Amino acid sequence: MYIDQKKVKLFSLSSNLQLAQEISEASGIPLSQCEVKRFADGEVSIDITETVRGHDVYVIQSTSNPVNEHLMEVLIMIDALKRASAKSVNIVMPYYGYSRQDRKARSRQPISAKLVADLLQATGASRVLAMDLHAAQIQGFFDIPIDNFPGLPIIGRYFKNKEFSKEIVVVSPDHGGTTRARQLAEYLTCPIAIIDKRRPRPNVSEVMNVIGEVEDKIAIIVDDMIDTGGSIVNAASALKERGAMEVYAACTHAIFTYPANERIEQSIIKECVVTNTICLSKDKLTPKITQLSVGPLLGQGILNIIKDESISDLFTL
Amino acid sequence: MYIDQKKVKLFSLSSNLQLAQEISEASGIPLSQCEVKRFADGEVSIDITETVRGHDVYVIQSTSNPVNEHLMEVLIMIDALKRASAKSVNIVMPYYGYSRQDRKARSRQPISAKLVADLLQATGASRVLAMDLHAAQIQGFFDIPIDNFPGLPIIGRYFKNKEFSKEIVVVSPDHGGTTRARQLAEYLTCPIAIIDKRRPRPNVSEVMNVIGEVEDKIAIIVDDMIDTGGSIVNAASALKERGAMEVYAACTHAIFTYPANERIEQSIIKECVVTNTICLSKDKLTPKITQLSVGPLLGQGILNIIKDESISDLFTL
Amino acid sequence: MYIDQKKVKLFSLSSNLQLAQEISEASGIPLSQCEVKRFADGEVSIDITETVRGHDVYVIQSTSNPVNEHLMEVLIMIDALKRASAKSVNIVMPYYGYSRQDRKARSRQPISAKLVADLLQATGASRVLAMDLHAAQIQGFFDIPIDNFPGLPIIGRYFKNKEFSKEIVVVSPDHGGTTRARQLAEYLTCPIAIIDKRRPRPNVSEVMNVIGEVEDKIAIIVDDMIDTGGSIVNAASALKERGAMEVYAACTHAIFTYPANERIEQSIIKECVVTNTICLSKDKLTPKITQLSVGPLLGQGILNIIKDESISDLFTL
Amino acid sequence: MYIDQKKVKLFSLSSNLQLAQEISEASGIPLSQCEVKRFADGEVSIDITETVRGHDVYVIQSTSNPVNEHLMEVLIMIDALKRASAKSVNIVMPYYGYSRQDRKARSRQPISAKLVADLLQATGASRVLAMDLHAAQIQGFFDIPIDNFPGLPIIGRYFKNKEFSKEIVVVSPDHGGTTRARQLAEYLTCPIAIIDKRRPRPNVSEVMNVIGEVEDKIAIIVDDMIDTGGSIVNAASALKERGAMEVYAACTHAIFTYPANERIEQSIIKECVVTNTICLSKDKLTPKITQLSVGPLLGQGILNIIKDESISDLFTL
Amino acid sequence: MYIDQKKVKLFSLSSNLQLAQEISEASGIPLSQCEVKRFADGEVSIDITETVRGHDVYVIQSTSNPVNEHLMEVLIMIDALKRASAKSVNIVMPYYGYSRQDRKARSRQPISAKLVADLLQATGASRVLAMDLHAAQIQGFFDIPIDNFPGLPIIGRYFKNKEFSKEIVVVSPDHGGTTRARQLAEYLTCPIAIIDKRRPRPNVSEVMNVIGEVEDKIAIIVDDMIDTGGSIVNAASALKERGAMEVYAACTHAIFTYPANERIEQSIIKECVVTNTICLSKDKLTPKITQLSVGPLLGQGILNIIKDESISDLFTL
Amino acid sequence: MYIDQKKVKLFSLSSNLQLAQEISEASGIPLSQCEVKRFADGEVSIDITETVRGHDVYVIQSTSNPVNEHLMEVLIMIDALKRASAKSVNIVMPYYGYSRQDRKARSRQPISAKLVADLLQATGASRVLAMDLHAAQIQGFFDIPIDNFPGLPIIGRYFKNKEFSKEIVVVSPDHGGTTRARQLAEYLTCPIAIIDKRRPRPNVSEVMNVIGEVEDKIAIIVDDMIDTGGSIVNAASALKERGAMEVYAACTHAIFTYPANERIEQSIIKECVVTNTICLSKDKLTPKITQLSVGPLLGQGILNIIKDESISDLFTL
Repeated sequence: MYIDQKKVKLFSLSSNLQLAQEISEASGIPLSQCEVKRFADGEVSIDITETVRGHDVYVIQSTSNPVNEHLMEVLIMIDALKRASAKSVNIVMPYYGYSRQDRKARSRQPISAKLVADLLQATGASRVLAMDLHAAQIQGFFDIPIDNFPGLPIIGRYFKNKEFSKEIVVVSPDHGGTTRARQLAEYLTCPIAIIDKRRPRPNVSEVMNVIGEVEDKIAIIVDDMIDTGGSIVNAASALKERGAMEVYAACTHAIFTYPANERIEQSIIKECVVTNTICLSKDKLTPKITQLSVGPLLGQGILNIIKDESISDLFTL
Repeated sequence: MYIDQKKVKLFSLSSNLQLAQEISEASGIPLSQCEVKRFADGEVSIDITETVRGHDVYVIQSTSNPVNEHLMEVLIMIDALKRASAKSVNIVMPYYGYSRQDRKARSRQPISAKLVADLLQATGASRVLAMDLHAAQIQGFFDIPIDNFPGLPIIGRYFKNKEFSKEIVVVSPDHGGTTRARQLAEYLTCPIAIIDKRRPRPNVSEVMNVIGEVEDKIAIIVDDMIDTGGSIVNAASALKERGAMEVYAACTHAIFTYPANERIEQSIIKECVVTNTICLSKDKLTPKITQLSVGPLLGQGILNIIKDESISDLFTL
Repeated sequence: MYIDQKKVKLFSLSSNLQLAQEISEASGIPLSQCEVKRFADGEVSIDITETVRGHDVYVIQSTSNPVNEHLMEVLIMIDALKRASAKSVNIVMPYYGYSRQDRKARSRQPISAKLVADLLQATGASRVLAMDLHAAQIQGFFDIPIDNFPGLPIIGRYFKNKEFSKEIVVVSPDHGGTTRARQLAEYLTCPIAIIDKRRPRPNVSEVMNVIGEVEDKIAIIVDDMIDTGGSIVNAASALKERGAMEVYAACTHAIFTYPANERIEQSIIKECVVTNTICLSKDKLTPKITQLSVGPLLGQGILNIIKDESISDLFTL
Repeated sequence: MYIDQKKVKLFSLSSNLQLAQEISEASGIPLSQCEVKRFADGEVSIDITETVRGHDVYVIQSTSNPVNEHLMEVLIMIDALKRASAKSVNIVMPYYGYSRQDRKARSRQPISAKLVADLLQATGASRVLAMDLHAAQIQGFFDIPIDNFPGLPIIGRYFKNKEFSKEIVVVSPDHGGTTRARQLAEYLTCPIAIIDKRRPRPNVSEVMNVIGEVEDKIAIIVDDMIDTGGSIVNAASALKERGAMEVYAACTHAIFTYPANERIEQSIIKECVVTNTICLSKDKLTPKITQLSVGPLLGQGILNIIKDESISDLFTL
Repeated sequence: MYIDQKKVKLFSLSSNLQLAQEISEASGIPLSQCEVKRFADGEVSIDITETVRGHDVYVIQSTSNPVNEHLMEVLIMIDALKRASAKSVNIVMPYYGYSRQDRKARSRQPISAKLVADLLQATGASRVLAMDLHAAQIQGFFDIPIDNFPGLPIIGRYFKNKEFSKEIVVVSPDHGGTTRARQLAEYLTCPIAIIDKRRPRPNVSEVMNVIGEVEDKIAIIVDDMIDTGGSIVNAASALKERGAMEVYAACTHAIFTYPANERIEQSIIKECVVTNTICLSKDKLTPKITQLSVGPLLGQGILNIIKDESISDLFTL
Repeated sequence: MYIDQKKVKLFSLSSNLQLAQEISEASGIPLSQCEVKRFADGEVSIDITETVRGHDVYVIQSTSNPVNEHLMEVLIMIDALKRASAKSVNIVMPYYGYSRQDRKARSRQPISAKLVADLLQATGASRVLAMDLHAAQIQGFFDIPIDNFPGLPIIGRYFKNKEFSKEIVVVSPDHGGTTRARQLAEYLTCPIAIIDKRRPRPNVSEVMNVIGEVEDKIAIIVDDMIDTGGSIVNAASALKERGAMEVYAACTHAIFTYPANERIEQSIIKECVVTNTICLSKDKLTPKITQLSVGPLLGQGILNIIKDESISDLFTL
């Protein structure tokens, strides 16, 4: 397909076919065929059935669970495309696995988020499109251009449209997420609060404090990702105890490993708003889960990149 | 531990702990502690509980099934060791996963064996110790030193000790393995034969020919690896049909994905001789399987490398 | 000088000679001679008057103001050492200039903290020793080992020794610093509070809220660096307004550009505790400033690195 | 010259001007002027007399004997083109010198085929077009795209057109060439045989066995290259002894170092079919030699690459 | 702006805005907006206010005094442009700072001119346009294309137009500049002379000899740069003593650090001809200084590069 | 062999065995065995018959005529040593071929001296020891340490010992060599002169001027290399015509391609002093040639490098 005199192809690997189709629809670029197979002994094999010579190729793959399988798929795909003389290999990675291992917190730890960046670059990726990286500094792990699409505006717009009649407070479930909470609060013009776990005295067990006013407010706990759901559900209880009227939860990346769904459904959380950067099987779309699509955002982003247009306009609420 | 004034540590990742222990015993270097964990969402986490600063570190890991998990473990380990200021990071990889994808057989195929080499080097490996690489040319995929230990002498010695009273013939199960068959035949001072699948005429189904004399001989089919066991079992039947008295099978790498064991046990193969480069669970050590250890060879090899001694003497029968 | 059979030399460039001397004393390694000159047109010239062939060389240089001059000095020094056959070039950079530019906050911004890492590595640095990096993720900007020494324990110990009779609260002056505040609070076993600037309604001017309890408490505002002092002084006022009894300020890196000292002296801040990662001229050591030395910590750290001993033990209170 | 809006130029270095002209004719791209000179002391000097700024440049050079001279020519040419701002530098290397040194067969051997790949890439080559690489794995020595054009279809078509009335057998002159023999046999729908040199007992001299049926058949010995001709002529004799009716020889790369031609002419080989990847002087085109041109194949290949079309269609018989 | 279907933008950093405007006018490419700021602590910040995605970007910056500031500006600009997905980043550096540190003259010296080349390339520059590099070999410090525009023809043309009635002699002020003097003499068809400082006997002070005939001639001392003006003014006196009628001075790069202007005005030099590769403040344009513009040359050079036309035609008188 | 607890080996390739033996004697390090072979088709093959694992290896090879053969030998040797786990590979290259192609003198020229540096580094050289590089800037072509040993002191000492009774003048045969002439003149405390070829008027043939006083003096023409001898012999004649009493010639690198020796013998040159960086066959050691050995200098240099001692002391007269 030609866009602005450029030959462009769009491929999806196996992690999130539905999002790939939404991106394809949003951008108007059809999905090209490639077959991802696994040999009996677990080795990945990729068959690209169309020529890519001289094409700007976009490959959609979230490195979600099973993260190592999905990561190797994308590395092998890059190798194949590079050797098949693709002009550029652009990786659309809505969820960036290993992003939480972004620094040495203790001695002799790896920085796996940097390792992933190194692997992508050593293999030959030309560009990465990510969403809501766990830390914005991960952009600096790359020497190739990386665009960090924000999911917060999509979530912010959703809550704004609810036109809550009560006052809202955005809550960060831990210290690290304060900046993110501040950003969502900016969209919703409201204050923030923070869940602060601490020991009142040495050798006394940790208690969950809430810093900031939540009483009689609608609390929206926001995080970049929900994994097993433990901390967000505990945070919700703490907020309720401090008098919050209703508690919503929101995140971009719904990792939802067991028993996240059970916990959320049984919690006092009223609604849990997530996006589809990670593919959720039907059984994980439990009643309280609302899933918003990032397909239009990424589809338009790809188009802008192809046309050499700025993408920062897409980043506002 | 000090050897020749060098600080040395030996670690094992999760793929083959038993071989690691054998290597540790053979070399006299104790296994240091590291913990390989998996988070709920599948991400690998590695905890190294001893200092490695300034040490020459040897890490034992076969990238056997599940290959992508085992490969990511080793990459993350290298990253952690490099950042923890190890002096050198030496990867002992008795089985090198993806080694069969060593060339572009068709258009737009990856060369995954080269990709693996690139990943190891980009991450910071200092040296690789492998065994019976699928193609010797894989050595050229590396810019760091790579030692390709041969498993054939171990297998050859085993058969030599049997002191067969009948004439022997070594058989390659396909065209690609002829050189390997020739090498084993050299050890046993015997002729070779080759299984040659071909279509007699177009649109006629493939038949399995045997090139070379096998009648009344003891045939030893040799390959570098046995995966599902299909081709080796078929080869055995063909040899029997051509009058071979007894048929043995042998390989270095016992991948043994289902239904390899069933097939071998039900076949006319008398004994299948393999090494322990890949860890075999107890249920895969079925009656016809004889497993030889490469631990002493690799342990001695590591010692020689540490002492800056030649390792080529270890490569003879 | 020989330590553990290694030849070691220690050099100081021009940014912080006093700290260099303290490090030299703490480690017992004398400072070697190098002359940093500037030609009439501003070009830096470095003369190393002792042989460095085969030595592990440690170079002390904070890239404080004038940051570009100090950075070029260190790059030119690395080039000279590398070409003079130093065995390794280890950069001790107690203050890492440009560390605040650690991500793309807006379109078309550079990530200068990564650029600095790239320049150091491209030039040939073997290792970096830094202190309290603005973001821990900057470690991941490096492929060479980087040790991030913490300054918080030194500050924590200082406040602990004061044995305040009143309750303490540690305050972060913005959202980004919450984690740092939590760490110091951990040392002092006390709660935290956060300064939260926000607009109550659109088109209304920003107000400075305090999230968390500060009334009748001794507040210690902590940040990684104090530049012009504006935000920390404003934070102090806000805390006083909310009833804080006394307000202390603390940071690792005392950038102190004009009018930081004037502001602090005229503010309600009782004492401002800093370290000497950045050299402060005498006129900047105004009465309220207390300067703690990081020399013993870094000196011991260098020794441990030379001796291949772990340095994590040095990181506790 | 413009092809598909791309600026393209074609250059020939000194190894094979005639093939260069055939490629130029087949592709319709005229040969641009460059002068390869040698100074009195043997240094190569290259003068490119036309601008190449922004052009996709194709350079034709087989690294045949004198291989080191031809290799340095191509490296110097790449350097000149890169510095002259060529957009891409594509090396058409029909014969790839040093390709037989593709693995460490013994301790402390170089892998010169990898070295050549490294030199081409370090110097700035963008792509390589080769033919019948000695081992397909040499593709993996490259990180840039490499297309391995097959010469076997050209040879296969030639023999097919002979419409032999007798049965044919394709013979590999050694174990390493079995796969190649199988491929040619596939084209000609016939069986294969293998020459197997071995010692019947230790301390007994090597004899030349033939594995497979050759009696009363037309034998075509096929190899990728013929160097001094010794082994192919001996193979022919052995086949004749086993009753082969007629013996043909075939290879892609006619290295033909002395006394290859004398041996072939005096042998029982009826015809020796080669291609022109290596330029043969007139005195080497002795009566039994038939030379087929690879010019049309490579010319069409270059066109397809320029037009971003697949080249795999060109690879079939 | 589109030129030959390419998207092109031209930026100027802070060192030489006037030359940037002349280049813009000569090339017809408007200057795009970017803001170079300095934070209170001296860190450089660059704001690019227009999209550069997919553009060939040309950045104008002489690394003149303050050289380290100007160099960091250009490195940060390259980082920003690369991350903003510029197609290529071309650095127009009319004056190349640190170019005199182009070799190790003594032990343990850096080669800062190479360091600058390494920094530009590590950061991501695609091409450099320089003028009258101190040594032509600096071209070899780069792996990316570098065009070394000559300023001598501009100076030569100026003197030719004077149509002196007396004989001319071109004088090199030291041994290193002989080749440059020869080139200018070529344009003016005249002989050369050389200033040779030497000690007649050991322990006797250095005297300034003139090698070559200068009596009754118009002497033009030519150098690539004038820094403090000391050696050129001394050379002028020596020439006058040997009977030169009039003495002119000329150079490409007018560094003019104090007291260059005072010295020249008070010397017997009649006129000092320089170019505007370095921006001269008004107080440095003293009466004897004649400044010629290199703007038209560089503007046309940029156009030729964009249009893939040769630029060597621009290099003649 | 152990020196200072380091394992060291010394190898010689084929270009200059006699110098290698002198270096071996001077350093006390015996020459280790390696066999350089050439296959029938010209490919180089190297057999290293001793282990080099963990050794600092020094390889002696001048890249003199045939330069491409000698260069490939050294590249292949580096590859073999690297793969054989040598600790460091140090190339002693007394004569550096292609050093005259050190800049782009015209459009579209290669910079082959940089190419050679790139090839050595890409292949894995750890350090280079060269002598009297054609331009000192070639040091900047390397990122690895390079030591540029000076040959002038050896030549200077030789002439000093002659204790000429007449005044001496050192003469540069062209503009490029003025700095070298100045250096030798420094040793001999004498003035310099320069040969200056120029056209008096356009369209008039070039004449050879002598700038500087030579009458009644003993003239020593000095250059870094003598190739065909044309320019040095012409220079000698021009000096004689201007009244020089005796003319000597001197250079470090005696390339001596035909008809250098004939020219020198038939010229008015009294004696031509050279070193043995390039091996001269007996027939090139004609009566006027005096050959001085650089073996002791290089041997001592290697020892100092091994012992981590400065080598600059070796560089004085």
